[in-house]
Amino acid sequence: MAILVIHGGAGGDGPWLGKTPLDPGRIDCMKQVLKVVGRRLESGEIDCLEAVTLAVEMLEDEPLFNAGQGSVIGEDGSITMDASIMRGLDKAAGSVINVTKLRHPIRAANFILQRGWPVMLNSSAADDFGILSGVEQVSQDWLKTELRQGQWNQWKQSKLNPGTTDEDDSVLDHDLEGRVSTEFSDEGMGTVGAVALDSNGNLAAATSTGGMTGKPVGRVGDTPIIGAGTWSDDTIAVSCTGVGEAYIRTCAAHSLATSYHSSGKLTESADKVLDDVAPLGGRGGLIAVTSHGQLTMPFQTRLMYRGYWDNYNIKVGIGPEFEP
Amino acid sequence: MAILVIHGGAGGDGPWLGKTPLDPGRIDCMKQVLKVVGRRLESGEIDCLEAVTLAVEMLEDEPLFNAGQGSVIGEDGSITMDASIMRGLDKAAGSVINVTKLRHPIRAANFILQRGWPVMLNSSAADDFGILSGVEQVSQDWLKTELRQGQWNQWKQSKLNPGTTDEDDSVLDHDLEGRVSTEFSDEGMGTVGAVALDSNGNLAAATSTGGMTGKPVGRVGDTPIIGAGTWSDDTIAVSCTGVGEAYIRTCAAHSLATSYHSSGKLTESADKVLDDVAPLGGRGGLIAVTSHGQLTMPFQTRLMYRGYWDNYNIKVGIGPEFEP
Repeated sequence: MAILVIHGGAGGDGPWLGKTPLDPGRIDCMKQVLKVVGRRLESGEIDCLEAVTLAVEMLEDEPLFNAGQGSVIGEDGSITMDASIMRGLDKAAGSVINVTKLRHPIRAANFILQRGWPVMLNSSAADDFGILSGVEQVSQDWLKTELRQGQWNQWKQSKLNPGTTDEDDSVLDHDLEGRVSTEFSDEGMGTVGAVALDSNGNLAAATSTGGMTGKPVGRVGDTPIIGAGTWSDDTIAVSCTGVGEAYIRTCAAHSLATSYHSSGKLTESADKVLDDVAPLGGRGGLIAVTSHGQLTMPFQTRLMYRGYWDNYNIKVGIGPEFEP
Repeated sequence: MAILVIHGGAGGDGPWLGKTPLDPGRIDCMKQVLKVVGRRLESGEIDCLEAVTLAVEMLEDEPLFNAGQGSVIGEDGSITMDASIMRGLDKAAGSVINVTKLRHPIRAANFILQRGWPVMLNSSAADDFGILSGVEQVSQDWLKTELRQGQWNQWKQSKLNPGTTDEDDSVLDHDLEGRVSTEFSDEGMGTVGAVALDSNGNLAAATSTGGMTGKPVGRVGDTPIIGAGTWSDDTIAVSCTGVGEAYIRTCAAHSLATSYHSSGKLTESADKVLDDVAPLGGRGGLIAVTSHGQLTMPFQTRLMYRGYWDNYNIKVGIGPEFEP
């Protein structure tokens, strides 16, 4: 028995108008990830760490999600990506910050985890290590898509500049403004992540993102931060999505773990974490799986791209309900 | 009633030979910090956030500690510094990663906290923001001291290279090797931090470091990571010191907070955190203060530079006992 849970970001606050023309592509991708990786995980061919890495790689490769190719574009017109991964068994972890040249940032984080030390690598050092380790090197042009360029142009034109915003609340307003009115305004959405329980009862978690459209140069969100965006110990694995600063300030992923440890209640603990995050301007979602085989995927936004493989059952959803 | 607790790093494993000729300078600095900042905190002239910022600034200015001027030198011969700060009242936080030009990295982190968003800034963007905000710009030559250059030369000659080490255990062995035999081998020590409780019952924590001698380019330790090296909420403020990777992988500062929340036992919770950190190669120490006015400053290394102001009482120590 194995479980794989994935997400492709939370967002879409305001009146959700239903699926956009691009959502079927996202749904197909999630189904494919769950089918391909879930099967290999279930058979024992790959362990939880490889499963979350492969799942996130496939999501990074889907240009409709905000990670790897199709990452959103920062204020200076360039893409910088963050990713982290953690193995519950021994709390081994790897993280890359602000990489610009990697097709699969999560694989670089995986290689860092495998090497063992250090845990976090920054910018060009992370790019260099990833490439030396065998991660495919790609250009910024390859990473950029028309969709993201369009979103960036829209951001630029409307002179929205989150970097000079003073209050968390206004950041939230900004971040959500018109997000669902057109496909070009879903910035902040699309971070990807995966958590897995393998047949040996081991857990792992992985998260990868391009950040948010127009993000200030040098901004680091929660995705590469162990304990904020990603956490796994031997009882629970967690991957978060939302406005990252609030997840950092609440140490969200680790908070869920400690709350679950003390209460034994997964759903209540996960809801409480999102309740703590929301007032800090970070409304979003998370996915988690426990060593007992429980899973949860709550979100406080209008929608969260998400799905799971649980013993050959596959479910995916965007809005409150799963797809039929 | 106000409390200020500071540290200047943990380390010195192996048979501690007693104070080095440089330790009286460190003791004098800590006493001065506690006297100057403690008095202003006690009087209510400054709040907890300004107190930890000022305390860390003074420790950054002391070249004998590994932060600001006198930071240790990385493998490429340059100094890169990390710092973070957090205010318990509203969980506001600020963090700078791998800055190279700032006299006071902690003040840049403070300015980031005051601005509100984003929480973390990386490398040159953090330098630029700090300088624009009024933090004094300094050169790498100004940051470097003879002591650190000597340690770096020694590291270079002995071809110790922590960046290519495969196992946490060997990192620990490396890190501790001969650390106390001469003054030139105390690498990894000297990270500085402060936690404070002000007369309004509010808490804050701050940590700043140059990392470790010969650290790989791009390595990020626990110091700038909210939840790992630094944490504050409205019940407890924490600053950690030790081999950072283990503090990241245990989410050490936040672990102490959650453990204290659930047990109400400060000393036991702090000891447990260090027990969890140690097997991951991160033997070290931490300081913490609670909203009830309890403080603790445990360490599992041979020594930790530390001291506190508690209602006009000042104590400082290096080894197991406080100075007379």
